[in-house]
Amino acid sequence: MLRLPEILAELVHWLGRIPGVGPKSAERMALALQDWDRTDIEKLAAALLEAGERVSGCPQCGCLAQDGNECAVCNDPGRDQTLLCVVETALDAIALERGGGFDGRYHVLGGVLSPVKGTMPEDLSMAQLESRIDGEEVREVIIATNASPDGEATAIYLRQELAPSGVRLTRLARGLPSGGQLDYTDAETLQSALDNRREF
Amino acid sequence: MLRLPEILAELVHWLGRIPGVGPKSAERMALALQDWDRTDIEKLAAALLEAGERVSGCPQCGCLAQDGNECAVCNDPGRDQTLLCVVETALDAIALERGGGFDGRYHVLGGVLSPVKGTMPEDLSMAQLESRIDGEEVREVIIATNASPDGEATAIYLRQELAPSGVRLTRLARGLPSGGQLDYTDAETLQSALDNRREF
Repeated sequence: MLRLPEILAELVHWLGRIPGVGPKSAERMALALQDWDRTDIEKLAAALLEAGERVSGCPQCGCLAQDGNECAVCNDPGRDQTLLCVVETALDAIALERGGGFDGRYHVLGGVLSPVKGTMPEDLSMAQLESRIDGEEVREVIIATNASPDGEATAIYLRQELAPSGVRLTRLARGLPSGGQLDYTDAETLQSALDNRREF
Repeated sequence: MLRLPEILAELVHWLGRIPGVGPKSAERMALALQDWDRTDIEKLAAALLEAGERVSGCPQCGCLAQDGNECAVCNDPGRDQTLLCVVETALDAIALERGGGFDGRYHVLGGVLSPVKGTMPEDLSMAQLESRIDGEEVREVIIATNASPDGEATAIYLRQELAPSGVRLTRLARGLPSGGQLDYTDAETLQSALDNRREF
């Protein structure tokens, strides 16, 4: 096996540590980068360093922002200030924004409760959430944690914690995904789709 | 759509320019990198710059090497000096090395003849190849350009150019790929497999 030049093997190693990049793609990427202009490689390296240094969590909601500023959503006066969507991670907020159907603001928990991983309420931004609900004129909190066991458990915990505040609590619907075929759908999803059936 | 922080969008842009990395994976990579330690991001950036700076083509064969030195194959006295495998790119040599069944040395053409792209013989390392064949004790040249139209045309051109030297010229076999199923194989490949059928 042709040993890659040491320097290139080092690059393959580091590219391969990016989640979702396997050893094979890391190698392909490293080799493809050999065709790049020197200045472009410098720009990629600079972009990496800049992102590592300047991207930060929005101090208000925890979404991705930069230089310690608030995120684009919190900064947008056009968004509904009375509607709060609680998500596990900043990536979940990005997924929801992609649809474009939500015009409220977000609150990033920073994870889910997990007895296995030892994640406790104090490890999540629960206190900040409660003080946002108290301080701001929040009318409704949409609990948008994942439909996984930990996500469900966290949703139930949030319901218990937030119920005394009197705010309206909702949860994302469960049912068939768009384009879903019944014979490929798991029993639990089918049951949710049945339980939540609507007039038609 | 949640605008990514500018700095992060810049990183997505540059990651997305790596061949094989689509806009979606670039975004996923950039976001995944947010969880990295600062020092690891610095190491990745440094590896990129180092590879851009220090990886070079072997002055002998054109395979990947570093710091202007000869590559691992040319440096290996155990390799058959009389057997030369002509490939289009350094990546092709790496693919052949992966199999481990070739113990000669390589010659990287640096491309293929292409009237469409305007690649002429003088754009490839043809002269170096001829002088290697003249100067070294080469017994056989395996023409391992791709089985594509341009690769075939380049192979035919090489045969014309190298025939006068009297060296033995061979070409990689065409036929069914390993695991290939007849009903999924294109007509041209099947024809090659028929034409090149062997005693069994």
